[in-house]
Amino acid sequence: MQIDLTSLHAFMLQMINLNDGAWNDMQQRLIHRNYKKRESFVDEGKVCREIAFVTKGAFRFYKMIDGVEVTTYFSFENNWISAYTSFLQQLPSYITIEAIEESEILILQYEDLQYMYQHHKIFERFGRLIAEYLVTCLDERLHSLLLKTPEERYLKTLHDNSIYFERVPQHYIASYLGIAPESLSRIRKRIMHKAIS
Amino acid sequence: MQIDLTSLHAFMLQMINLNDGAWNDMQQRLIHRNYKKRESFVDEGKVCREIAFVTKGAFRFYKMIDGVEVTTYFSFENNWISAYTSFLQQLPSYITIEAIEESEILILQYEDLQYMYQHHKIFERFGRLIAEYLVTCLDERLHSLLLKTPEERYLKTLHDNSIYFERVPQHYIASYLGIAPESLSRIRKRIMHKAIS
Repeated sequence: MQIDLTSLHAFMLQMINLNDGAWNDMQQRLIHRNYKKRESFVDEGKVCREIAFVTKGAFRFYKMIDGVEVTTYFSFENNWISAYTSFLQQLPSYITIEAIEESEILILQYEDLQYMYQHHKIFERFGRLIAEYLVTCLDERLHSLLLKTPEERYLKTLHDNSIYFERVPQHYIASYLGIAPESLSRIRKRIMHKAIS
Repeated sequence: MQIDLTSLHAFMLQMINLNDGAWNDMQQRLIHRNYKKRESFVDEGKVCREIAFVTKGAFRFYKMIDGVEVTTYFSFENNWISAYTSFLQQLPSYITIEAIEESEILILQYEDLQYMYQHHKIFERFGRLIAEYLVTCLDERLHSLLLKTPEERYLKTLHDNSIYFERVPQHYIASYLGIAPESLSRIRKRIMHKAIS
């Protein structure tokens, strides 16, 4: 089967001055994999040895706390997934990442990524830009949790990531916002009420 | 005055295979600056145009919320400071960074850092590794806030960053842990009591 690399290629061209040599070298190392709903990309406690570009579908990051799944992040098509801390340090992951839709991803394994860094300067830049992007995402999320009220967090998520409310079950979003599902319903009703009154 | 670059040079050599060309180029761009206690490196609302290596002293990152300073991070000698999201995106900072001791730093300005990335492949690697390090720090902090109890957060901070308890006023640590100063005192007493009973 021919793997469709169009969206990944476009994503990379948008970020860096990707030359044919680097792209060809990368293409040869990519692994294509399909996921069914609830199938996991990485499990808590295992070392994450892969980073992947989502070409179709959606994934949820979560951790089990006292038998409850606490959702920490979502990732959709045209974005990356990995248990980053586990992947970067090659230590056991403290999260699970699983598909919440039928999904397709393109995988680069740890050693292959290191090979790309060694052999292509432009890939060092790509790695830096991706890591910097993650820094801004994590920083924003951290500040939102530390400094915003649940209602402010809800409104910001609605503004920045309205896709969540179209494709993610509401109890996962509540968990992601750090509130009970009932609280999320209450907040939504209150805001709706404000908007129409 | 001769600037002492020993600790920064050692830090970089430990991370990358730093060549003389890159180091000489960097040296020429470094700016040395002293800070008095409570003097700020960057103010909330201003664009952060600098990243700096702390050679002496300590800094606190905080944000004003309803007239209260909420502490989000600390940085000591042999570590870096910057309002990273503001610096990376060149947008206004939502935090203030200020010295909590007499401090000394070595500064690289935004344009100079971009120059270093353009001209030295090894600097792209350095930038990637620093960004990746920040990802793991932020990720850990995020998970700690989302998934741990205040007592677990206190114990982890005590274990990983005992230096905080030696050099940072207790009300800043309480704020950093997301709890009231009285709660921190209670937790400390409870743990002390457990340890000796």
